[in-house]
Amino acid sequence: MKFSKVAILGPGLLGGSIALALRERQLAAEISLYGRSEQSLEGARRAGVTDQMFTDPRQAVEDAEVVIFCTPIGAMPSLAETISPALDPFAVVTDVGSVKGCVVQALEPLFHGKARWVGSHPMAGSEQAGFAAARADLFERSVSIVTPTENTDLQAVEIATQLWTALGCRVLSLDPLVHDQLVAQISHLPHLVAAALVQSASTESLALIGNGFRDTTRVAAGPPPMWTDILLSNRTALESVLGRLISTLEQARTQLQSGDEKGLHELLAQANHVRCQLGGQKK
Amino acid sequence: MKFSKVAILGPGLLGGSIALALRERQLAAEISLYGRSEQSLEGARRAGVTDQMFTDPRQAVEDAEVVIFCTPIGAMPSLAETISPALDPFAVVTDVGSVKGCVVQALEPLFHGKARWVGSHPMAGSEQAGFAAARADLFERSVSIVTPTENTDLQAVEIATQLWTALGCRVLSLDPLVHDQLVAQISHLPHLVAAALVQSASTESLALIGNGFRDTTRVAAGPPPMWTDILLSNRTALESVLGRLISTLEQARTQLQSGDEKGLHELLAQANHVRCQLGGQKK
Repeated sequence: MKFSKVAILGPGLLGGSIALALRERQLAAEISLYGRSEQSLEGARRAGVTDQMFTDPRQAVEDAEVVIFCTPIGAMPSLAETISPALDPFAVVTDVGSVKGCVVQALEPLFHGKARWVGSHPMAGSEQAGFAAARADLFERSVSIVTPTENTDLQAVEIATQLWTALGCRVLSLDPLVHDQLVAQISHLPHLVAAALVQSASTESLALIGNGFRDTTRVAAGPPPMWTDILLSNRTALESVLGRLISTLEQARTQLQSGDEKGLHELLAQANHVRCQLGGQKK
Repeated sequence: MKFSKVAILGPGLLGGSIALALRERQLAAEISLYGRSEQSLEGARRAGVTDQMFTDPRQAVEDAEVVIFCTPIGAMPSLAETISPALDPFAVVTDVGSVKGCVVQALEPLFHGKARWVGSHPMAGSEQAGFAAARADLFERSVSIVTPTENTDLQAVEIATQLWTALGCRVLSLDPLVHDQLVAQISHLPHLVAAALVQSASTESLALIGNGFRDTTRVAAGPPPMWTDILLSNRTALESVLGRLISTLEQARTQLQSGDEKGLHELLAQANHVRCQLGGQKK
């Protein structure tokens, strides 16, 4: 499989990694990249990873077979309005947004009749941001989720699936709102909790940390504006799982207060059993 | 510096790693190891890391210059009573317990007039347990805390400090209860929260996890009985920091509900600022 032209909108960690991986795996005859400013494209330019670079997104998407939004979620709707007149109506358009309900709701109607749109979420990333952190192997052995709706063109789903598979992902298809509920549990809630753990720790205690604290809170080093955007975009699902977590922690507090060894052991043993099956870092 | 004889009580991750490190760095003329059963000593026996092994702790500590308790906290008091008649009164006795207030309270009077006791807590470990996970470099670039009280022999503090320094640690001295408050923030609370995060995640969501969730919850794979013991032994300090964390999470829930972008960004930005200064894994 080789795409004729892939347009990547956004030269950050994910956009940059997609460009590097497409290039390394020779998956596209042509790669074009859009960045908001010449400065934002500087890293990609130095890496010489794309054939064309533009600060006008309409030029970037011209004649593209596949278009991938790699911008913050909040920037997607206006960018979609800007590019839609310039798209080939058979172009497959997707994105890498970490929340899907709101993205699908905003983008699907915008692309109706103008291109073939389907949401994606490659579950790969890092606490680092920007093209400097991009890696050709970022997606290898990751999960990528596609989120078609009843309005989605089936061939677009297939092409998006081929794209992520070709980049090294295992691809799953989920309803956008189901996606948001699951990802709230394993990504958005852990991020919020990691931030709260860091914020709760005194400077004096931070002088003593070991690998446990470093690992538990690593994700809290992620970019705050992007994560504020993500958490608020998925607030309904996140509120719900956050409420459940607070209940679990309240229960643990009661167990500590009453010296309930059996109850506390049960929580830790259940978590231990599950966690031991999940294994370590993928690389 | 070389010790004449070091007795290690407990052949698990920490006891095993101390034995391996003492041997590799040639810090002891003789190393003896106590395990509850012949079976518990099997791993250390195969590794051939100590000169002597005993299932009677009194034999293990005979003529020892330094004795290190590497058992669960709950097992320390009765073991201390058993060995105290067999100790050289100039022996320096310490431990690796993760909680210090209760350990000092229990052990200091037991050793009064029988040996020179000081509490220690090397902040090194792993979610894995047992001799099989032991490593000679476990303590390198770690922090180890000694917790003398007004009753502690000053030379014992010095010898314990030399021991941990020789094993590769940076050594700090803290009041036992201050230690417990600080460690509650950076170790005991993160452990409890990691367990709660794992327990809150559905099986369906766990099929999608990436490195973020793996890191955030790694410590939850630690042994449940040991951690139940640790959390309950430090319940006063832990309850207090858990209460503060729950308040922070309640506040975040309110911010999500009201769409308070500024408030949520502030939490994430504060945490990001602090976390970015802490760096990555020490090895």
